[in-house]
Amino acid sequence: MINFHVMTLFPEMIESGTGGSILGRARKNGLISVDAVNIRDFTDNKHGRCDDYPYGGGAGMVMQAQPVCDCCKAVRESINGQGRNGDSTRVIYLTPQGRTLSQEMAEDLAKEEDIILLCGHYEGIDERALELLHTENVSIGDFVLTGGELPALVMIDCISRLVPGVLGGDESALIESFHDNLLEYPQYTRPEVYEGLRVPEILLSGHHENVEKWRREQSIERTLRLRPDLIPGAKLDKRETRYLESLMEKENGN
Amino acid sequence: MINFHVMTLFPEMIESGTGGSILGRARKNGLISVDAVNIRDFTDNKHGRCDDYPYGGGAGMVMQAQPVCDCCKAVRESINGQGRNGDSTRVIYLTPQGRTLSQEMAEDLAKEEDIILLCGHYEGIDERALELLHTENVSIGDFVLTGGELPALVMIDCISRLVPGVLGGDESALIESFHDNLLEYPQYTRPEVYEGLRVPEILLSGHHENVEKWRREQSIERTLRLRPDLIPGAKLDKRETRYLESLMEKENGN
Repeated sequence: MINFHVMTLFPEMIESGTGGSILGRARKNGLISVDAVNIRDFTDNKHGRCDDYPYGGGAGMVMQAQPVCDCCKAVRESINGQGRNGDSTRVIYLTPQGRTLSQEMAEDLAKEEDIILLCGHYEGIDERALELLHTENVSIGDFVLTGGELPALVMIDCISRLVPGVLGGDESALIESFHDNLLEYPQYTRPEVYEGLRVPEILLSGHHENVEKWRREQSIERTLRLRPDLIPGAKLDKRETRYLESLMEKENGN
Repeated sequence: MINFHVMTLFPEMIESGTGGSILGRARKNGLISVDAVNIRDFTDNKHGRCDDYPYGGGAGMVMQAQPVCDCCKAVRESINGQGRNGDSTRVIYLTPQGRTLSQEMAEDLAKEEDIILLCGHYEGIDERALELLHTENVSIGDFVLTGGELPALVMIDCISRLVPGVLGGDESALIESFHDNLLEYPQYTRPEVYEGLRVPEILLSGHHENVEKWRREQSIERTLRLRPDLIPGAKLDKRETRYLESLMEKENGN
């Protein structure tokens, strides 16, 4: 079981984003818990403000250290109160200024009992809060979003599906994408002919070895075309390496 | 105005994910529209099934071509019915087997009037549907999620904030991350001292040029430490290049 604690100005986004589908079922079954905590509840400001202008000038507003730090303190105390170690719980700050989320990172985090996720808004959070909380800064990609809530949901989803029992029968059998650093091969299901398009003959042959060979070649071809950056890390046997080389020669020939 | 049409098995996830905060306001103000269409409503199967076993064997279930294609046809007709061109509307399929979402891609898509987003589940979608719909395959990163709904929400968020008027006063002023291919500098706001930590003196100096210089150096230092992959594309002037070189020498010296 993993307990997610999300510090946010928009707790309802976290609640609704984890209330349905696979994550909702996982919550009901006690395989994960998601606690969305409103940072605004912890501000000392009597008008409920959590942000102010940046020192040194510049556009936008910056979230203040005090509400963020006090909110985190309360979350850590609540974890301690449940008999676990809130003081050593890792705090992940979702920000474009972070290391890029990878499957390995998710697998590492899936070993934790508790994870605190911190969502920023506006022009970011006062750097001193990030220092005091020893945040690990994580980005989900090189694009800009309106806040950290969607990235937090992405992390919860990615980590939760690694928790035993969260995925059921058909789902748990998912072949991992990026197996051997290759994209997955194309999939086909019934009927055999749809709108004049036939399923590749080889998939109907029942010849397991040929099917495997075809699928691997499709994966290599697709990875070369769509994600050439993955190719240097691809794990290929000798025959597959020759196949890749023949594809690259063909490409250069054109 | 951009109209998003999301083909999904979990329309309530799309509805709730775009109902609040900045996107909810943009919807209310008519700056974007989000129409979540349930693929299941279009299946010919009398039990409402949309998936079947993969040809060639292997784990998991594959979404069938028929409900996906018929759903897309209905969406295109609905766009046509509103006086726009549904037949040429781009269809983005969210899948780990796609090009990685970037800010440039979002900026390109923000020019569209309509965008159709296709969310997969299980082991993917019958390849013939993707061919027939001429999907553009997009991934939000090298990690595995339970379905395409969160990636679709990420795309909607990322594209919508580029629509004029979606971000209000304080928000629209956001300095772009990745400016000149550098991560953003640290931010500070009131008070000057928090838990014994002082705001860097230079930010209080009022000397605009020095502040700028310090911020650029912080950006360079941070990018080198957290995202060295961005450094080759960084746009630096001569002085900044020398600063980067001095940092790299220091690093190699340790």
